[in-house]
Amino acid sequence: MTDSSTNMRLKLPITCLILEIILIILFGTLVEYDYDTDAARFNSDRNGSQHDPMQNEFYYRYPSFQDVHVMIFIGFGFLMTFLQRYGFSSVGFNFLIAAFALQWATLMQGFLHGLHHGKVEIGVLSMINADFCTGSVLISFGAVLGKTSPVQLLVMAMFEVTLFAVNEHILVGILGTRDAGGSMTIHTFGAYFGLMVTRILYRPNLHKSKHKNSSVYHSDLFAMIGTIYLWMFWPSFNSAITEHGDAQHRTALNTYYSLAACTVSTYALSALTAHDGKLDMVHIQNAALAGGVAAGTAGEMMLTPYGSMIVGFLAGIISVLGFKYLSPILEEKLKIQDTCGVHNLHGMPGILGAIVGVVTTAVVSRNVYGEGLINVYPEVEREERDLHFQAGIQAASLAITLGIALLGGLIVGFILKLPVFGAPRDTECFEDSIYWEVPGEEPSHDNQLTVVKTEESEKLSCSTHPRED
Amino acid sequence: MTDSSTNMRLKLPITCLILEIILIILFGTLVEYDYDTDAARFNSDRNGSQHDPMQNEFYYRYPSFQDVHVMIFIGFGFLMTFLQRYGFSSVGFNFLIAAFALQWATLMQGFLHGLHHGKVEIGVLSMINADFCTGSVLISFGAVLGKTSPVQLLVMAMFEVTLFAVNEHILVGILGTRDAGGSMTIHTFGAYFGLMVTRILYRPNLHKSKHKNSSVYHSDLFAMIGTIYLWMFWPSFNSAITEHGDAQHRTALNTYYSLAACTVSTYALSALTAHDGKLDMVHIQNAALAGGVAAGTAGEMMLTPYGSMIVGFLAGIISVLGFKYLSPILEEKLKIQDTCGVHNLHGMPGILGAIVGVVTTAVVSRNVYGEGLINVYPEVEREERDLHFQAGIQAASLAITLGIALLGGLIVGFILKLPVFGAPRDTECFEDSIYWEVPGEEPSHDNQLTVVKTEESEKLSCSTHPRED
Amino acid sequence: MTDSSTNMRLKLPITCLILEIILIILFGTLVEYDYDTDAARFNSDRNGSQHDPMQNEFYYRYPSFQDVHVMIFIGFGFLMTFLQRYGFSSVGFNFLIAAFALQWATLMQGFLHGLHHGKVEIGVLSMINADFCTGSVLISFGAVLGKTSPVQLLVMAMFEVTLFAVNEHILVGILGTRDAGGSMTIHTFGAYFGLMVTRILYRPNLHKSKHKNSSVYHSDLFAMIGTIYLWMFWPSFNSAITEHGDAQHRTALNTYYSLAACTVSTYALSALTAHDGKLDMVHIQNAALAGGVAAGTAGEMMLTPYGSMIVGFLAGIISVLGFKYLSPILEEKLKIQDTCGVHNLHGMPGILGAIVGVVTTAVVSRNVYGEGLINVYPEVEREERDLHFQAGIQAASLAITLGIALLGGLIVGFILKLPVFGAPRDTECFEDSIYWEVPGEEPSHDNQLTVVKTEESEKLSCSTHPRED
Repeated sequence: MTDSSTNMRLKLPITCLILEIILIILFGTLVEYDYDTDAARFNSDRNGSQHDPMQNEFYYRYPSFQDVHVMIFIGFGFLMTFLQRYGFSSVGFNFLIAAFALQWATLMQGFLHGLHHGKVEIGVLSMINADFCTGSVLISFGAVLGKTSPVQLLVMAMFEVTLFAVNEHILVGILGTRDAGGSMTIHTFGAYFGLMVTRILYRPNLHKSKHKNSSVYHSDLFAMIGTIYLWMFWPSFNSAITEHGDAQHRTALNTYYSLAACTVSTYALSALTAHDGKLDMVHIQNAALAGGVAAGTAGEMMLTPYGSMIVGFLAGIISVLGFKYLSPILEEKLKIQDTCGVHNLHGMPGILGAIVGVVTTAVVSRNVYGEGLINVYPEVEREERDLHFQAGIQAASLAITLGIALLGGLIVGFILKLPVFGAPRDTECFEDSIYWEVPGEEPSHDNQLTVVKTEESEKLSCSTHPRED
Repeated sequence: MTDSSTNMRLKLPITCLILEIILIILFGTLVEYDYDTDAARFNSDRNGSQHDPMQNEFYYRYPSFQDVHVMIFIGFGFLMTFLQRYGFSSVGFNFLIAAFALQWATLMQGFLHGLHHGKVEIGVLSMINADFCTGSVLISFGAVLGKTSPVQLLVMAMFEVTLFAVNEHILVGILGTRDAGGSMTIHTFGAYFGLMVTRILYRPNLHKSKHKNSSVYHSDLFAMIGTIYLWMFWPSFNSAITEHGDAQHRTALNTYYSLAACTVSTYALSALTAHDGKLDMVHIQNAALAGGVAAGTAGEMMLTPYGSMIVGFLAGIISVLGFKYLSPILEEKLKIQDTCGVHNLHGMPGILGAIVGVVTTAVVSRNVYGEGLINVYPEVEREERDLHFQAGIQAASLAITLGIALLGGLIVGFILKLPVFGAPRDTECFEDSIYWEVPGEEPSHDNQLTVVKTEESEKLSCSTHPRED
Repeated sequence: MTDSSTNMRLKLPITCLILEIILIILFGTLVEYDYDTDAARFNSDRNGSQHDPMQNEFYYRYPSFQDVHVMIFIGFGFLMTFLQRYGFSSVGFNFLIAAFALQWATLMQGFLHGLHHGKVEIGVLSMINADFCTGSVLISFGAVLGKTSPVQLLVMAMFEVTLFAVNEHILVGILGTRDAGGSMTIHTFGAYFGLMVTRILYRPNLHKSKHKNSSVYHSDLFAMIGTIYLWMFWPSFNSAITEHGDAQHRTALNTYYSLAACTVSTYALSALTAHDGKLDMVHIQNAALAGGVAAGTAGEMMLTPYGSMIVGFLAGIISVLGFKYLSPILEEKLKIQDTCGVHNLHGMPGILGAIVGVVTTAVVSRNVYGEGLINVYPEVEREERDLHFQAGIQAASLAITLGIALLGGLIVGFILKLPVFGAPRDTECFEDSIYWEVPGEEPSHDNQLTVVKTEESEKLSCSTHPRED
């Protein structure tokens, strides 16, 4: 099992230590507390009459942040444990690349979103944004799951975070695109970036590991932990960085109903299309979440509750159909080996979400927002543009995102092909034991009671053998 | 394994799609954002001096909502995974019927609790109430677990949500009953409704599936995830819809101590009554939660911390004794096959909670509440009734709840007997593979290392055979 | 398997019931609601102009409390399920002793931290402090895991909670030590107390249970649930009782970056030191958390983000090296059998955290805090001492904590040796079946489909046997 090329004894430590030391140096020179986390600045008007600690951003956003945090580390981590022999890597590599990416994202987003006196200022809002960027990397991880070394993943994370921040800055910073829940910036970007990377890393002989590219009973239950946490906290995800008050509240509500409708249509389509009328866990684990993705752009808008439900309903249908009919085609014809089916959960629903954002922006009149318009469309409120122009911006943003994601994935895919990064061989994919010390499957039984039991079952097992022979 | 009656290829999709389309139409015609989720209304006084976004209901209730949400989807879902071969259905059907029920509950509760200009207004408070109603359906699901098809469950959910809303409206809307944590409206109602349904669906030959109606080692650990989440977040459940300020705070605190005391008495009684002095996982998974149920009515009252502990202490004792001595009697004599023992976790502790509410209301003087009386007993504060009358109302509410639950369960039980709904046969209960595509139990081993290991264990296993023969 | 000494039929119920009844009596005579949970007091100025329910402590702290609660019950509980046959006990005993300890801690901390008119006043702050104290007991539980009966654990919890409250009162109450996240009071105390207890309970023949003192594949995945929850919510843990506003915010942020850096250095060191360059789950499950422990004292200080990252980076390195090189030495030379390696996760990183607190206090000037100084160093702000004196106090506090922990552990260890408490025999350690009714490992298969499958595998299994013989 020892293989010098996949051996991580030096590659992984060197990569990790160098990256972390660079991060610490850059943080030391460039990062400082923002107004709400700095003791002197936040308390500078303590003797004034307006000082209320409850107005610290912490109390508006920290519960949402923690929900997002759970989605990133438990949600994505356990969602990918469905593979029978890749649970350690799914949770463990998710953990490693997320811990790295959130630090790197703090810097990249800080540089691009505007320095304050030459410094990146951080607080709960930057923590949420760093987690969001990390989420995008983890979506791409889902596409290449089981076929990459941890060093490859760290390198991918480094480049993807950078490109994510560039794309996000073009959309949110320059164009004034609205995308609070990241249908475009997070889901579409992460999915198509990852799909292009996995296309470049195409393995014609992956069938040699095919028997391990599936679930067992308990691995599917572990994956459901991930699914359910993602599902429950998606309202927090989409509302985490929207404006205070009604905007956060409405976004959470819209996402809640979108997800509920999506779950019902997912079950319908799964039973309709799956073998023998039986439900398929792959659909439930993934497609039921598409309603959250698809509400990522329009969730903060006056989408109406039934509008949200229509969006979720469609997202579930599209996603199941994608798993059933499109994924096999992508693999056979386009050579895209998408382990987790991120195209069906993040790709298509992300595009749907972007389109819903365009339509909602174009269709809902500004009177509907009243004085609250500034929270959703500040440029429109300031008369810098009208809602139809904003809708055009939203549409252009989708195209830009797809372009940067695909081009970025192309380049990064070729970088990851360098043999030095220690990718597993075709026969060793979807297998923890290349990178982890793996214990056995079964507990050792040797106390008296269980020995007796085992002997009985042996008797039973082998004494039936002659009858069969 | 294919059986036309249980085959869900058409039944489940048709049911799901029709229900969801009806929901979308009704939401489109009847539901709108409330004051705190509507951009125009919440910001209408934005230029006034009093506008503080922190006063949006979102910040008072959203963290509690998310905790309740976790209880509904992870708590109930995983609590029921204790069955060895029913984990997919436990989590998966829980997911489906909850996603449907919360939408239907939004409508039913909205109709009955008062329309605003002919519209149902929704926000975080209605989301919590919808989750509460869903919780009641999931309690009933626990009674029939393993013996029903997903279509039966959806039909049950539709009727139960409606009856729940009727009962809740009679109690809270008309009578002015206090029941913030739902000892009566949620737990007693859900338990006795479900018990009556399972009584009507009595299967004399259920023993044919008996070997699957039990746990294995890892399924019990998955179930503990559900238990612990329910236990931890019960303080949020009971306090989620109480009044702002001290009422929410006190309810959480009372529930915390009730649960702690309940856990200690559960362990005591489990060791005392279980076989050979050993602890029984069924007791720990369930009875330790009874303290939360029993604090559902009086939790917001000035129950005192030690009062809460006495309530929890008694609830744990009653619940373990119920599992040990009462459940077998209910099954044998009354033909009530209660898979999860909801009578012991929700039924009896719910009644206990209702009684504690009566006593606390009658015993604690209004002086104890001071100016805070209006938050707990608004009718008493407005001099419309005195505390003894309120106590009488509380007692009558328990009787009404039991009546509606039992009568409703009777009728719905007979509806569910229609063969068209695809119930499993007696030999196929507690078995995922009727409704799900189920993978194997064990990972496939065929990389070199593990093959060697397997050969060794074969040698070991079979070479001991001759010695035994 | 029946053994009168370890049989819990009477020992456990009697212990539990007596303790709980004592608790209820003491709560009844000594405990009352605090200002924010009492209906009359909190609403006493309801008609005044300043009354804002959002100023109730509940809204500042309850989300943090729930995160801490998850760490105590899910985090610690599942972290210890890594043992192959001790999952029931890990989660279950964690549940029992935590439920007891948080009640007892409420009393002990209340007595020592100051009675109000002879009463212990409770609210969300006391609930968090009770959970913190419970955390310390659970750390000690990690040291003795698998080698103690539940009665021993309850006795240990009773004494440890008391000593914890004494130590905490000396530090925080008398000396004015800053230790919001408990590097000293919680982690150092819990670890060295537990290490001394396990030293006194040394079992020379523990190797007889050695084969069960290890993990299997799925038990390691359950443990990762614990790890990830502890990791995610540690920012809430360290910030839960810091001052409102910037202090809570900054502490959460510092902890977030400390943990991220720690995770990266943990992976680096694990690959560098583990067998064959492969990652070791023990390191990932534990050492990646050391960054939270080490930020427990200085987290609320102006540690700076990069300072936090350096602390986490070092903590991860120290912790992995401890698991790899120090733990075997402690076991062989000092006879300290530390099941979970709490010395590496809580002991050394706790000391590191205390030292970081000393250095940060001494080095960062008071100008950096401005008007916010009072939130972090109230005695310094009131000119009662300067920052160098405060640094000295911090250093002395570490020594005091170590002294009380080691002496307390020594005494309690000898108490726990009394045979009446029912410790398991050396051959029965790390085994659930002594104290729990344990179901089988494998589901029973006897529906048609699976029987066929089983027969095939029997054929396969046994027909290879002749070829091997």
